Amino acid sequence: MSSQLQIDSILKYALKEDIGKGDITTTAIIREKHRSMAVLTAKEKFILAGIPFAEKVFSIADSSLKFKADRKDGETIKKGTVIARIKGNTRGLLKAERTALNILQRLSGIATLAHKFTKRVKGLSVKITDTRKTTPGLRYLEKYAVKIGGGHNHRMGLYDGILIKDNHIQNAGGIKQAVRLARKNIQHMLKIEVEAQSMREVNDALSSGAEIIMLDNMSLKSIRKSVKLIRSKNPGVLIEVSGNMTLQNIRETAETGVDLISVGALTHSAVSVDISMDTAPLQRIY
Amino acid sequence: MSSQLQIDSILKYALKEDIGKGDITTTAIIREKHRSMAVLTAKEKFILAGIPFAEKVFSIADSSLKFKADRKDGETIKKGTVIARIKGNTRGLLKAERTALNILQRLSGIATLAHKFTKRVKGLSVKITDTRKTTPGLRYLEKYAVKIGGGHNHRMGLYDGILIKDNHIQNAGGIKQAVRLARKNIQHMLKIEVEAQSMREVNDALSSGAEIIMLDNMSLKSIRKSVKLIRSKNPGVLIEVSGNMTLQNIRETAETGVDLISVGALTHSAVSVDISMDTAPLQRIY
Amino acid sequence: MSSQLQIDSILKYALKEDIGKGDITTTAIIREKHRSMAVLTAKEKFILAGIPFAEKVFSIADSSLKFKADRKDGETIKKGTVIARIKGNTRGLLKAERTALNILQRLSGIATLAHKFTKRVKGLSVKITDTRKTTPGLRYLEKYAVKIGGGHNHRMGLYDGILIKDNHIQNAGGIKQAVRLARKNIQHMLKIEVEAQSMREVNDALSSGAEIIMLDNMSLKSIRKSVKLIRSKNPGVLIEVSGNMTLQNIRETAETGVDLISVGALTHSAVSVDISMDTAPLQRIY
Amino acid sequence: MSSQLQIDSILKYALKEDIGKGDITTTAIIREKHRSMAVLTAKEKFILAGIPFAEKVFSIADSSLKFKADRKDGETIKKGTVIARIKGNTRGLLKAERTALNILQRLSGIATLAHKFTKRVKGLSVKITDTRKTTPGLRYLEKYAVKIGGGHNHRMGLYDGILIKDNHIQNAGGIKQAVRLARKNIQHMLKIEVEAQSMREVNDALSSGAEIIMLDNMSLKSIRKSVKLIRSKNPGVLIEVSGNMTLQNIRETAETGVDLISVGALTHSAVSVDISMDTAPLQRIY
Amino acid sequence: MSSQLQIDSILKYALKEDIGKGDITTTAIIREKHRSMAVLTAKEKFILAGIPFAEKVFSIADSSLKFKADRKDGETIKKGTVIARIKGNTRGLLKAERTALNILQRLSGIATLAHKFTKRVKGLSVKITDTRKTTPGLRYLEKYAVKIGGGHNHRMGLYDGILIKDNHIQNAGGIKQAVRLARKNIQHMLKIEVEAQSMREVNDALSSGAEIIMLDNMSLKSIRKSVKLIRSKNPGVLIEVSGNMTLQNIRETAETGVDLISVGALTHSAVSVDISMDTAPLQRIY
Amino acid sequence: MSSQLQIDSILKYALKEDIGKGDITTTAIIREKHRSMAVLTAKEKFILAGIPFAEKVFSIADSSLKFKADRKDGETIKKGTVIARIKGNTRGLLKAERTALNILQRLSGIATLAHKFTKRVKGLSVKITDTRKTTPGLRYLEKYAVKIGGGHNHRMGLYDGILIKDNHIQNAGGIKQAVRLARKNIQHMLKIEVEAQSMREVNDALSSGAEIIMLDNMSLKSIRKSVKLIRSKNPGVLIEVSGNMTLQNIRETAETGVDLISVGALTHSAVSVDISMDTAPLQRIY
Repeated sequence: MSSQLQIDSILKYALKEDIGKGDITTTAIIREKHRSMAVLTAKEKFILAGIPFAEKVFSIADSSLKFKADRKDGETIKKGTVIARIKGNTRGLLKAERTALNILQRLSGIATLAHKFTKRVKGLSVKITDTRKTTPGLRYLEKYAVKIGGGHNHRMGLYDGILIKDNHIQNAGGIKQAVRLARKNIQHMLKIEVEAQSMREVNDALSSGAEIIMLDNMSLKSIRKSVKLIRSKNPGVLIEVSGNMTLQNIRETAETGVDLISVGALTHSAVSVDISMDTAPLQRIY
Repeated sequence: MSSQLQIDSILKYALKEDIGKGDITTTAIIREKHRSMAVLTAKEKFILAGIPFAEKVFSIADSSLKFKADRKDGETIKKGTVIARIKGNTRGLLKAERTALNILQRLSGIATLAHKFTKRVKGLSVKITDTRKTTPGLRYLEKYAVKIGGGHNHRMGLYDGILIKDNHIQNAGGIKQAVRLARKNIQHMLKIEVEAQSMREVNDALSSGAEIIMLDNMSLKSIRKSVKLIRSKNPGVLIEVSGNMTLQNIRETAETGVDLISVGALTHSAVSVDISMDTAPLQRIY
Repeated sequence: MSSQLQIDSILKYALKEDIGKGDITTTAIIREKHRSMAVLTAKEKFILAGIPFAEKVFSIADSSLKFKADRKDGETIKKGTVIARIKGNTRGLLKAERTALNILQRLSGIATLAHKFTKRVKGLSVKITDTRKTTPGLRYLEKYAVKIGGGHNHRMGLYDGILIKDNHIQNAGGIKQAVRLARKNIQHMLKIEVEAQSMREVNDALSSGAEIIMLDNMSLKSIRKSVKLIRSKNPGVLIEVSGNMTLQNIRETAETGVDLISVGALTHSAVSVDISMDTAPLQRIY
Repeated sequence: MSSQLQIDSILKYALKEDIGKGDITTTAIIREKHRSMAVLTAKEKFILAGIPFAEKVFSIADSSLKFKADRKDGETIKKGTVIARIKGNTRGLLKAERTALNILQRLSGIATLAHKFTKRVKGLSVKITDTRKTTPGLRYLEKYAVKIGGGHNHRMGLYDGILIKDNHIQNAGGIKQAVRLARKNIQHMLKIEVEAQSMREVNDALSSGAEIIMLDNMSLKSIRKSVKLIRSKNPGVLIEVSGNMTLQNIRETAETGVDLISVGALTHSAVSVDISMDTAPLQRIY
Repeated sequence: MSSQLQIDSILKYALKEDIGKGDITTTAIIREKHRSMAVLTAKEKFILAGIPFAEKVFSIADSSLKFKADRKDGETIKKGTVIARIKGNTRGLLKAERTALNILQRLSGIATLAHKFTKRVKGLSVKITDTRKTTPGLRYLEKYAVKIGGGHNHRMGLYDGILIKDNHIQNAGGIKQAVRLARKNIQHMLKIEVEAQSMREVNDALSSGAEIIMLDNMSLKSIRKSVKLIRSKNPGVLIEVSGNMTLQNIRETAETGVDLISVGALTHSAVSVDISMDTAPLQRIY
Repeated sequence: MSSQLQIDSILKYALKEDIGKGDITTTAIIREKHRSMAVLTAKEKFILAGIPFAEKVFSIADSSLKFKADRKDGETIKKGTVIARIKGNTRGLLKAERTALNILQRLSGIATLAHKFTKRVKGLSVKITDTRKTTPGLRYLEKYAVKIGGGHNHRMGLYDGILIKDNHIQNAGGIKQAVRLARKNIQHMLKIEVEAQSMREVNDALSSGAEIIMLDNMSLKSIRKSVKLIRSKNPGVLIEVSGNMTLQNIRETAETGVDLISVGALTHSAVSVDISMDTAPLQRIY
């Protein structure tokens, strides 16, 4: 219920941001009862993501519109492919057009980028995850698109995962003290992840009982050394790598045998794909 | 008042999206009264945009934080430059960090791209404008960033400008009918803009009394021909060009003498710049 | 969508204002399932306005009520005429009664007054418009009633039209400076209207390039002189008259040949018409 | 607390209705830091009502404005009198102007009318009360204005008083049954008022134990007869008269010795008084 | 309408409080389309209260769930009895489970306790009422449960009844002054209740014209004396007793002949009854 | 930020529930500027909980009230002890009284009960935790009170912990399948807890890799056997006991060596403690 409510609320907000007091051009020109068929078409190749949200946008704008998806989220779409058709009141179609396209274009952009990253690590057991570097207000939708593209989700926010970073360590007086405090104060149902920037910190994290260790901005050499150390000391510990991952360097990093690689670029550097909407008046036979 | 309220509301939403029920790591590890100095530093070169919003984010997260900007929106920031310093409760600083950075990074990314586009048309009187292809929920902020980067804003949404597009024309039965309907039904205080995709449509728009004509996806040759025609017939009409403008083709287009060029890429293809936040415990002497 | 939402919200608020925690008299006396037929009857002659909102009020109070309008907005209603019939749960009918009547009575009062003003200028091409002197919270509904009565709407608020008034002119240092600033800072899609209180100001407005000139509180003689001047200098400029228009003086003013006359009285001096609601228990045969 | 919150909310709504996305004229022309002194002046004679709400409107629009009332609610204001002065940011002043005036003008119109009615019954112990025939959304403010004009408030809505009307009586099968049901079902802390349209109904109301009897739309003769009857049978019962009261007929009605007369016209037929706001730039010496 | 909205809002809040961003266990394990039958069973004997609210909770969580109550509010439920069956999507059922049970369990606990108190005064005409000592946020629901258990409701809050207590009397300078002020300032439709802690205060309340007298924390002997005095002086006055009423002392108090006894324990000392929910996968034949 | 906002919102709701349109008695009798000192006094012995929330209630009702706590949350309060003093506007004090007391009384009731349970297991390392059986709307406050009384918090809701219960196991086709699905679908940062009702299920949970095992409604004998088994197989696994824990049986259960015991009674069977508020007019010397 709640996530759904949250998504509806951001979609409504986006529509309202565009429509405001009303679509003054369309209201002035298109008759109130005029009906059309709208077609969404891909103008380039990409991985589709966001169909359920686009459908929702049309339905919020005008609940009588009929949305029929020709393609599903996760499919590879070729240039020129029809993605969906929407039938109904022309004013409703034109009100929803831009917002629906903006969402589809951005989410498909993210899914396409996530897909590229995951293809690079094909055959390895590593998971590519997103980060909290998402567009303000769109985290839930953008993390959804990452999954559609084949990636995995890291924590949703500060509230659903313990990740002890540099600032915490420094303020607590060291990794061991930080982990001890976390263990004492958190609920018993959460694992503890610690960010380590050096071999010394990896050692501290290990001996403090951290259940996940994140190797932050380390060289490939240090990552390899860390993996070896952690696996030998405590094979149950999960290993994550983070920091400036690109399509160029991710394969080599993944081959070190780490469990997770988090990639900020999935959301902060994705660009929108190109999708258009065209409408035609509905024949009487409809 | 109202725009300010709207911005506050999207910033609060973004913070809540990240913080949810609370920053469980920080709450477990950092003492409630612990105080720090945080420093925002550029990790690459860019045009800064979003400082007032970043300040607002820190203030919403903890109203006792002291935010001091070293740089202002619109300045060119070099790699390594300190952008701002925030002093106060450590928990508050860490709660606001990601959201403030996400906003600064995206808005600066947009301003930087807008700056590149406007530099390309230096010396010409054309205005580079944005479009409605913004990230859902962030339109106001993203259009702000476009202005910071030297661009201009097109209409904010469907509610504050009459733009007669292909779909309207087709449904009304032609440009003249569409303009006539608009003239009859809209308030007397708005100009009428018409999208034209051919010379014939430019002619129709001119004779219908349109006050702004948008040349949509036309070849350079057609643009030049249209400009000549419009200027000769009615020098008071504004001319806008739209469609797949890039850093490569914008100069040549601008040199045709049009008044406005709208560029969707300003917002749909901008990527975030890199900014970091580091904190250090405050000395007693503060 | 958005305007509709806004209207629903003011109607809900009005209902809540009247019902609060519940209709304690009706709840105590009328059985929960009791059903009635309610009839709305005109107690005097007037122009009807507000039927869709009255219907909405009944539907918000109890979505199972059946509302059937015998008359439509814009019709002239004679005393004793049945306007609408509503069938259903008696508690629901009584909850909605006062709010529905209050809205119908006020909107019809405004439509009736607007109708009187427009009748006075019959045969002339002038448009009678409303102003922003509406009842706080009811602007949208009251401007709707003005249109039903044959009037036209001026801008909805400060956000959708450029009207440079005395205060702006004075602060900018003159009409020319004010218009220049407006032209520089506003979107290219809006016309600029300037308020002029003297021939000198009319001249300034003309030469500054204002697209609409409002003659504010001018004598008939000055209005005639201004019209002559403006038409001769720039026939494309729209001319508006404003200030203390009454049923007595509007015809003479209109005959000067101006394009628009704005009349505050349409909303600030309208009084409610008289409409009653009677209910009778529904026979079993329903 | 709660009524205050409710008032703030309707004032905010009214401001938002006028300002929407912003005052585009003022933003384009008046410098952000420009400061002025605004003066509210009476353009006719009236009873002032609404000063605290006007002050609140200015404060919501811009919390740094300084509002100084020269006159208080309830005072008789002569034409030309300065009512209040507001000092501060010019943009803030202009944003609040129309909404503050609209409220002051309408509430003062109601207070002035209420004052006329109460003056007509001078020397008698009768109370003049309002009804529920208020402008949707403004009930609390309008009932406040009635009190300022010397009137009294009847119940606020359906939730805070038991008033058994024709519809209830008919559905319950008579006055006695209706009162019995009310007595059984309502809280023990409320009195029961019954509407009577004939001497028979007055008798029924008396014998049913009603604590207040409203004589609805009765002739003067019937009112006198009813008063005599009620006073002789149960002197503790309060008597109210209702129905088409005007400035012409109220004195005679009041002289029958009834306790309360409710007058719908106080709110449904009041018209706004005329008040203007002028601004002048603040000298440096402020 | 309004009370219903208020209840919906507290039920939604309660659900959200439990579900937050989603039921992560169920989402991970139960297939999206999986369907089950859930059965609510009594684990002890009690008076049932809250079925409509439990039904509402399931419907808010998932509007497609089918709720079928086997028992109604007010019935005595034996251990092992099936109270209700809910059929539909398994994820929806599990989301609603805890919130629905928490409400049913608490309301039934209150109804059961109210039932015990009312049974103790069987055969007497006294009414047992609740107080304002309810759980914050649940007043409406808890007062509903009191009625289901056979009790009556005192005022809902500070807004719907005049109860002059010690603090008011002291600040006004005595009972007579307090009643005089109340009579002057309140609407004419409300009775006045006065709290009296001694015979002298009972006398003052009587002579001031109070319509209800509450005997607060008095001994049985004083209560008897007060009842005698009040009945002899003004038989129309209602008498209420308040203060530390228990199942042990209520019968004797009631036998003094008072009209009302208010019992804080009904809500502040009720404990939840035990109800369980079990689910089984739905057979294909459904 | 967020939890604080949530608490404020429930406190505001509780106040509004009590005050509604206003405290009509106090408004009628107590002068607007009257000031008093109010004193909160314990009428029985208990563990105090809720002082910050009571302070907040007074501050929401009237932000000028001065609240001074004599005692802190967690302290043992003897009968007759003054807990807090609040100074300021008398109307504000009386508005907040009941809501503040209702909260203090319920939270202190819970803290007192939690304290009794934790005292019973003194000297053992077991943690006593609450459950989700809280009053709808008050979960956060009630879980706070549990901690004040010496208990610990289990998960806040369905969103922040993986707890695989009977319904999940059955639908997944066994414990192993359920754990496998959870491991696959949940974020890597959460531990997995499994509910086991028999030795066989304990075995399954162990071999499936569950990180926490909850022994549900098991006999003491089975608990002992389970503890032995789990400790021998995987000493890292946490053991929780749940089901009908009372003050009588908790010590014996705790002595089996389990890590956690969850006790629904902490919140569903706590009763309010007795606290009173008395006010006295403030002397001039304040």
